[in-house]
Order: sequence, then structure tokens, then C-alpha cells
Amino acid sequence: MYSSRSSAEPVSAQVDAGRDGDGTTRERVLQLVVEEGPISAAALGRRLDLTAAAVRRHLDAMTEQGIVEIKNVTSRRKGAGRPSRRYVISQEGQQVLGDDYLGLARRALDVLGDAVGDEAPRALAEAYFAGHEDRYRQHLAGIDDLDERAERLAELFSEDGFAGFTRKVGRDNPLLAMQSTQLCQGHCPVREIAEAHPVFCEEETEMISRLLEVDVRRLSTQAAGAHVCTTHVPVGRERLAAEQRARRSASDAPQDPTTRTASAGSRLSGGRKRIVISPRQQERLS
Amino acid sequence: MYSSRSSAEPVSAQVDAGRDGDGTTRERVLQLVVEEGPISAAALGRRLDLTAAAVRRHLDAMTEQGIVEIKNVTSRRKGAGRPSRRYVISQEGQQVLGDDYLGLARRALDVLGDAVGDEAPRALAEAYFAGHEDRYRQHLAGIDDLDERAERLAELFSEDGFAGFTRKVGRDNPLLAMQSTQLCQGHCPVREIAEAHPVFCEEETEMISRLLEVDVRRLSTQAAGAHVCTTHVPVGRERLAAEQRARRSASDAPQDPTTRTASAGSRLSGGRKRIVISPRQQERLS
Repeated sequence: MYSSRSSAEPVSAQVDAGRDGDGTTRERVLQLVVEEGPISAAALGRRLDLTAAAVRRHLDAMTEQGIVEIKNVTSRRKGAGRPSRRYVISQEGQQVLGDDYLGLARRALDVLGDAVGDEAPRALAEAYFAGHEDRYRQHLAGIDDLDERAERLAELFSEDGFAGFTRKVGRDNPLLAMQSTQLCQGHCPVREIAEAHPVFCEEETEMISRLLEVDVRRLSTQAAGAHVCTTHVPVGRERLAAEQRARRSASDAPQDPTTRTASAGSRLSGGRKRIVISPRQQERLS
Repeated sequence: MYSSRSSAEPVSAQVDAGRDGDGTTRERVLQLVVEEGPISAAALGRRLDLTAAAVRRHLDAMTEQGIVEIKNVTSRRKGAGRPSRRYVISQEGQQVLGDDYLGLARRALDVLGDAVGDEAPRALAEAYFAGHEDRYRQHLAGIDDLDERAERLAELFSEDGFAGFTRKVGRDNPLLAMQSTQLCQGHCPVREIAEAHPVFCEEETEMISRLLEVDVRRLSTQAAGAHVCTTHVPVGRERLAAEQRARRSASDAPQDPTTRTASAGSRLSGGRKRIVISPRQQERLS
């Protein structure tokens, strides 16, 4: 009863004649898989006026890319032989078709603004980073050295898609206060919202301060046009303060062996953290 | 003063030895482009212990894919010759690195829930589709025929990433009330939120009813596990009602020539709307 299934006009005739080649044909195949899947290569060929071999070439490529996947369907007739292959769009293929969670997040900010007023972006930024902070704090527990904490935080940012890494700056400067670590983020997974609402960068900076237990300074943000978000971590200044504390306590009283920053930077003297690219990102790259 | 720029340990030594081949090398190249861009092929080669030719092979492939792009940099020295090529990550490349607007939208629903209670998902769904409805209504203005309105709405859904199309059902059935159009959506750009909050599907169904000016019925949703979201549009029933109205007015009074549904289905008798794939989707497909 589906008249479209026996439509006299093949879909191919409706395809924009201005475009041609494999891209267009592949789109037509995918389009029909979306509409009619699970569908066989033979049925796709009939609908598209293509040979089954031509259709299979596109199906194989898209199967390889993970955009479509194969379902083996056994015929209801008894003794109908081996199951036949049907194609459906995969979860990955659904992703190729895109999403609109950015649009939804923007709309949520509007609705939240109606409810709580101008503080809506800050409320969302606080809540967003609170989720990250809880997890990060657990992973940082037990790491006392400030440089190591910054390295670990860079790794944690990478796992969440921020492409985190560090740069050691001025480590050969005899003035300890000039020695620092730059905690960098090469990518921002919420960049378009942060561009519109810089309070996201502010809340993230405050989170970094709390997690590293030092007063950090934001030097640059992608939201403001930089290639990389950079946060200045005053490693040398903290070490200087620790040394001064150590000297004072040595003259005043027996030294407290638990002073956290006394060992800051003792193990790490240079080098950088590589970006950790997630398996999903790897897939898109390859 | 950036000690990382003259780091004694090359990044290559830090790469997981368990993985190998082009994928890994390409990741390492991209990673350095993200961290150090704008950077030249020669500098990348030095950092990665690779020949410039090997680096360029990956850069060319990623430039072709649109993941990295070339910046021509002129040396500050006068008469330094032609500008040299530097590589940076592109907007497209930033997309490859992924986003977290879904996470942000989920968090926004939490914050909105704190502000307005259990009605938060409905409030967001209403606001989300209100934005679509305003635009769709403008595009549907002046189209009186119900089948044409459904076709146009399917196109509009496609432009917003819903992969819209229609199926004509029972059009050879002598019982007019059995004739219908299925307005289908092969993809849902907010599927994960709709799965958690089916009120999104409800609000969308009501929007379709208002836009088509008939009482539609949702037959299936992807959020509930179907391949395709299907909405039943009672084209035949509307035509029947229009004919009855026409008969009544013919016997009671002169016929009203503006009766909208009197011409329903007069032009379209079968066929289907192809999915419109946007240029951005095409890029990802090719």
C-alpha cells in the first residue's frame, strides 16, 4: 500500500543535474538507505537505475567508513537458503548527518534567562564545570607536586576533548618567580558558547585555580581569538614561597615534612605533554 | 624562553609504541600543528624525526580533507624571498576534534530543572521548536494544498538536518479516509535529548499539527527505537470533509471558492521527496 515503493519516477531523475560523480551517487545511496533501510543492494540498484556492483562499491566504502552497517535477514520462506544482506544507517552514520545540540544549548540559555535573568550564562558555566571539577579532583588526589598536577590536569582536559598540553617557561631563569608552566588547551568543545559568553572562560579559570591550589592567570583564550587557550601557573613563585616557608620554619621550629610545595618541580625539568587523541577522534582522522 | 621548543626529548619518543603506521604519524603531525601552529613542514619534521617529505604527505592529505590549512608567512627580514608556508588547524579540523554541546545541553536541563522544576524539558522543547515553527510558517505561507504543505515541510525539516521525506499511503484505496501521507524524518539532530525526554517528540508533533492545520498522529519515533520518525497526515479524511462541506454549501448557499482543502491532492498523486543533504554533510560524506 506504499505507493512510494513503486514510484514510477526513479529518485535518480530528481537528483540535481548540476552535480555529478561519486559524491552525488554516494549521497543518493545513503539517502535511500536512510529512507528504506534495511534495504538490499539489489533493491537499491533498481531504485537508482544502477548495477548492483556499482551500488555495492558505495556500500562497501560506507561500510568501511562505518556510516552504514549490514543486517543479515533470513527470508520467512522455509528453505530459502542463506540470509540476505540488508543495509541500514549506523550510529556513526547518524553522526555524519549532524546534530543540533549547539542550537539546543543556545535555546536552553534563552529559557534559563527567562527563569533566572542575566545570571543564566554564569549559572550554566558553573554547573558545566562543576561536573568536570568533581571528576578531575578525584584524579588529582594524592598528586602533591604542582608541575605534576598541571601535567595530569592537561591529560584530563585531553580526555574531555580540550587537547590539553603544557609548556615549561623560563625554567633556566635564575629568578624563581619567572619560572612558570603554561597549561594549554588546543581545542574547546564548547567554543561557540564561550565566545558568546566569556563567563565560561572565567569559570574554567577559577576551576583550574581550585584544582591546582594556586592563583592562576589566563593569558589567552580561543574564545577571544587565540589559537590556544593558555593559563599561567606560577610554579616558580610557589617554589619560592615554599622555600621561604621552609627557611622560616627551620629557624622557628622543626621543619614540617608535609609541606606540599617544597618538592615542586623536583621531578619534572622540561619537556611537554603530548595531546591525547581519543579513539573517536582517531576514527575521524583516519 | 619556551624550553619546550628546544625540548631534548622528541615527541616521537613519547608516542605509544603499541600503535604504529600512518594513523599514528598523522595524529602526531596534527597534534603538533594544534600545539605549535602556525608551524612549517620543516619544523614539524625536526620535531618528529621525520623527513620534510614524509611530513608533507600527511599535511597534504589533511589539507585536502580541510583539517589543516596553509598560512603564508613573510619573513621579517627584507628581501627574504617568497613567503614560507605555515600550517594551522582549520575550523573543520576543530570540528574533527569534537564538541560537547550535548553535554552542555544536558547540564542546561539540570540547571533549568533547579529553576522551574519538572517542567524544564517541556519548556526547552517548546522554545526549541518555537524557533523552527516561526521559520517554517513563513515558508508555508501561501501553500494551500495539504499534500504540498507536507512536502514543503519535509524539505524544511531536511534543511534543518532532520532528513525529511514523505510517503504516500493508500492512494489507490477507494475509501478516501484510508488515504494518507506519512511525513517522515530519517534523522533527528537532537535524538539523545529526545530519547531522554519524549516531550520533545510530543512538542514536535503538535508543531506539525499546527503547521499543517490538521490533527496528525505520530506513528513512530527514532527516540523510541524506530529507524524513522513517522507522522500520519490524514490527507484523505481532510479531502472527504472538504467534499462534504462543499456539498452542504452547494445545497445551502453559493459555494465558497476559498475553501482550502477542496483542492487537496489535486496536483500530487504519488512519488516521494528526496532527502536534501546539506553542503556540510556532503563534505563529511566525500
